[in-house]
Amino acid sequence: MAGSKYEYVKKFELPDPLLMGTFLVLRIDGHAFHKLSEAHSFNKPNDERALQLMDHAARDVMNEFKDILLAFGESDEYSFLFRKSSALYNRRQAKILTTVTSLFTSSYVYNWSKYLPDQELKYPPSFDGRIVLYPSSKEVRDYFAWRQADTHINNLYNTIFWALVLQGGESTSQAHATLRGTVSSKKHEMLHSRFSINYNSLPARFRKGSILVREKVVPDKTDVQALGAEGATDSPDAVSSGTPGPTSGKPAKKPKVQFTTELLHCDIIGDEFWEQRPYLLAE
Amino acid sequence: MAGSKYEYVKKFELPDPLLMGTFLVLRIDGHAFHKLSEAHSFNKPNDERALQLMDHAARDVMNEFKDILLAFGESDEYSFLFRKSSALYNRRQAKILTTVTSLFTSSYVYNWSKYLPDQELKYPPSFDGRIVLYPSSKEVRDYFAWRQADTHINNLYNTIFWALVLQGGESTSQAHATLRGTVSSKKHEMLHSRFSINYNSLPARFRKGSILVREKVVPDKTDVQALGAEGATDSPDAVSSGTPGPTSGKPAKKPKVQFTTELLHCDIIGDEFWEQRPYLLAE
Amino acid sequence: MAGSKYEYVKKFELPDPLLMGTFLVLRIDGHAFHKLSEAHSFNKPNDERALQLMDHAARDVMNEFKDILLAFGESDEYSFLFRKSSALYNRRQAKILTTVTSLFTSSYVYNWSKYLPDQELKYPPSFDGRIVLYPSSKEVRDYFAWRQADTHINNLYNTIFWALVLQGGESTSQAHATLRGTVSSKKHEMLHSRFSINYNSLPARFRKGSILVREKVVPDKTDVQALGAEGATDSPDAVSSGTPGPTSGKPAKKPKVQFTTELLHCDIIGDEFWEQRPYLLAE
Amino acid sequence: MAGSKYEYVKKFELPDPLLMGTFLVLRIDGHAFHKLSEAHSFNKPNDERALQLMDHAARDVMNEFKDILLAFGESDEYSFLFRKSSALYNRRQAKILTTVTSLFTSSYVYNWSKYLPDQELKYPPSFDGRIVLYPSSKEVRDYFAWRQADTHINNLYNTIFWALVLQGGESTSQAHATLRGTVSSKKHEMLHSRFSINYNSLPARFRKGSILVREKVVPDKTDVQALGAEGATDSPDAVSSGTPGPTSGKPAKKPKVQFTTELLHCDIIGDEFWEQRPYLLAE
Repeated sequence: MAGSKYEYVKKFELPDPLLMGTFLVLRIDGHAFHKLSEAHSFNKPNDERALQLMDHAARDVMNEFKDILLAFGESDEYSFLFRKSSALYNRRQAKILTTVTSLFTSSYVYNWSKYLPDQELKYPPSFDGRIVLYPSSKEVRDYFAWRQADTHINNLYNTIFWALVLQGGESTSQAHATLRGTVSSKKHEMLHSRFSINYNSLPARFRKGSILVREKVVPDKTDVQALGAEGATDSPDAVSSGTPGPTSGKPAKKPKVQFTTELLHCDIIGDEFWEQRPYLLAE
Repeated sequence: MAGSKYEYVKKFELPDPLLMGTFLVLRIDGHAFHKLSEAHSFNKPNDERALQLMDHAARDVMNEFKDILLAFGESDEYSFLFRKSSALYNRRQAKILTTVTSLFTSSYVYNWSKYLPDQELKYPPSFDGRIVLYPSSKEVRDYFAWRQADTHINNLYNTIFWALVLQGGESTSQAHATLRGTVSSKKHEMLHSRFSINYNSLPARFRKGSILVREKVVPDKTDVQALGAEGATDSPDAVSSGTPGPTSGKPAKKPKVQFTTELLHCDIIGDEFWEQRPYLLAE
Repeated sequence: MAGSKYEYVKKFELPDPLLMGTFLVLRIDGHAFHKLSEAHSFNKPNDERALQLMDHAARDVMNEFKDILLAFGESDEYSFLFRKSSALYNRRQAKILTTVTSLFTSSYVYNWSKYLPDQELKYPPSFDGRIVLYPSSKEVRDYFAWRQADTHINNLYNTIFWALVLQGGESTSQAHATLRGTVSSKKHEMLHSRFSINYNSLPARFRKGSILVREKVVPDKTDVQALGAEGATDSPDAVSSGTPGPTSGKPAKKPKVQFTTELLHCDIIGDEFWEQRPYLLAE
Repeated sequence: MAGSKYEYVKKFELPDPLLMGTFLVLRIDGHAFHKLSEAHSFNKPNDERALQLMDHAARDVMNEFKDILLAFGESDEYSFLFRKSSALYNRRQAKILTTVTSLFTSSYVYNWSKYLPDQELKYPPSFDGRIVLYPSSKEVRDYFAWRQADTHINNLYNTIFWALVLQGGESTSQAHATLRGTVSSKKHEMLHSRFSINYNSLPARFRKGSILVREKVVPDKTDVQALGAEGATDSPDAVSSGTPGPTSGKPAKKPKVQFTTELLHCDIIGDEFWEQRPYLLAE
């Protein structure tokens, strides 16, 4: 057969399994999204439609990969937490990384017009992705705390910055100069005194980011009520039901617990979120 | 700063540089494209529109990444050859791999309606990707020979298979049974005697796959004439001009040579293609 | 400078840091030790002198690398457990792996004549080494349980095997045939009935392997009494005192706790060993 | 079986194959040899006996691993070149790296008393090791040129430095100060004018380092005469005959060519050495 003579080149592929028994966190970041947001006139400091599109793409990823138990998004990035025992694609790094990044990208482009119907997408946007391994639940919690703390810091800065520019009439470089060296409390005060904005009454989505989390469905089918949840009724595909794990190769032995995927904008730095959902950091 | 306490989790990221001085081949494969082609009624055995869409996505990738000198596509896969000395993203594996796979995916979805205007895309398609390193030019040539030989083998099989099914009235399992154990010459003969198809007169695109290659522009602006080329006039964005390398971090020192990216469907197993373009396998 | 022109070759070195926050287990195995034991007439089924030499080499390694908290040896292998937070050589894999394997080898050859004074070493013996990462303490305990269970299985087999050969007059192939398919209890019985050997009264070193463990020194200088310990008086360099960590780059902040390294031949599969020494599996 | 329950821990071992089709260079470096040379009163600036011991250990490594075609040593380091097609241990990195480093170490300790009979070895010395991959023969040549250029630079410095200290009566810090900023020609001149030393007439071993190279044996059994070779008659185990490759798993098909391993102290920066031995950089 003609192919056989050249097939030896396959042997140059190197194995790339990820260490077992560790949590996988896969983070996707927009590539040159500053330019994308300019080109498509995203609202400043936050464009809710663009954030909802990100959430939609993340939800599509979670519907496809049941080993993802939690996702956190802010701005042009999204982080996905895989269960510690995930055997997805035999934990082959490139396979997991590219398939997830590709599906996220695909969903973003595919659903663009649903969220930004008046803004034609001018060119194909792209994302990069990376996987980081965390050996223990403490580090996983600190990872998500890191991203949410970052959300807060960036959003506070951007909120006052764009108020100075859009309402205060400063140039962007003036606004940066005005803010240089200001601490958090000073920024809160400026927002309040100069622009009558109470930071804490801004939408939770902007201040806390987006959390997509598997929630156990209560067996008696009463409504799942999670604080701050924008659940199943938001969009046609908002509820995914199923059991995490079918893609992981290991058959579940216990009676099936049903899960939905809920969108929250709540605090994930404190203990409450995690204590209510111990299965996120279990096996 | 609130973020600092958690920022230590960044240190768990591991470096993943690719060995210097090797050719990178990045191959993208469609994820579950059998299902995609069924759901969107792709023509059998080949859907020219879908193949042109793949070529378009590959061209977008080459327009963005000048260190890619050559690409080869068939069916739902595309392989990209990066110059040996490429310093793109400091040769960080995950960064290169995800950015290219993401852009390819994005372009595929973005441009779908241009090529399949009568087939609404029903869900977001995705791709996986991998990078393989080849130390020498011999292995690079053999890699592309492997993919083109594979194209031939698959296309011959699929051509006779679908003739048996669509024109011969066989079921798909009957057709597989009919073909079991037949050698190449027998398949050619069946095509000719039963369906009056001369395999070698089928479109080169189906038999040879798609080659996207950087071609040096002759300085005096006379036409570039490459055998079998479907050049600049085919589509509005068919010609990309520029010099390979700007993304690689090293400034070019020589007077700039202009390149275009041409689409060919020619033989790349023999010597001629490579001897005419020695720069593909140089630094 | 003459060297500069060629120095670019250094850039081909790839980083190889081991994931933070995981336990390192480094296992050393004798290379072709079957031949070594034949060539130097090691006693069968166990040569206590050769085992003591292994223990000595392992102790030298622990004296040098304070981040090693525990080691387990049997036959021609030794496993070393590094503390989870070890920053030895910035966790560079090849550096840790080769330095430890080299020192172990060196000590083995250097001290040979102390333990086998009547057997001149005929050629330089060698070892291989590998590092495996374990994310949690459960896996670390199971690793050491695996090696000790293996010790038991092998020693029981070898004890009855060599009894059959040396006392029973069987050939080695006869002895293997005699033992084929026998379960553990049958082997115990054969030892007792045919050779009057009560397996459980054989030396603990042979049945349990060798455990080298950091023991906290009680501040008031009363004797450390560990069950089965062959402590400081065994050999001139048997006691190493100090605080684990000085090689790890991070200065200890707490008042210094003194440690000794004790040699035990006790059970490490059950909970007791670990519960008495919680620091082994802490940070 | 008792072991089976814990055996799952083996699955945490990760594969580590080295890229095919690349040259492996394994470099061994003495660990804390400054201290070792002080403790054992090595001659300054070079101790010929210690260098001969290094050469002996390197030769033992080459006798064991036939895929090593060339080695270069200077001071307390030795570099080994494996043939590009080597399949030793299926190119598993840790296995190759530790086995070679361990054998080198073992031989160094084992043979110490042959070369330094009046200096009892006071403690076990150790080495570290690393593997670097080079895709092409140019980089391999430049690697060895780098090491030999380094030998020259260091030896010239050390020669004049120790002349200033031992003959000139300067303190070591005075000597460093005297040499600060001096170029090569100035050092030559100082050696000549102040100490009547003609640098170029110093032993080639000190100026060029040690080269151990496989030499093809001329079939008619006449003496192999390589310029500067200290060949077979030097030491009982100086000649290793055999064909490179037996450990690599691939059976040689051609009539066997015999090789010896010769010790040279010649130039390896220029072309002559390599042009006379094209097989070093072939497959």
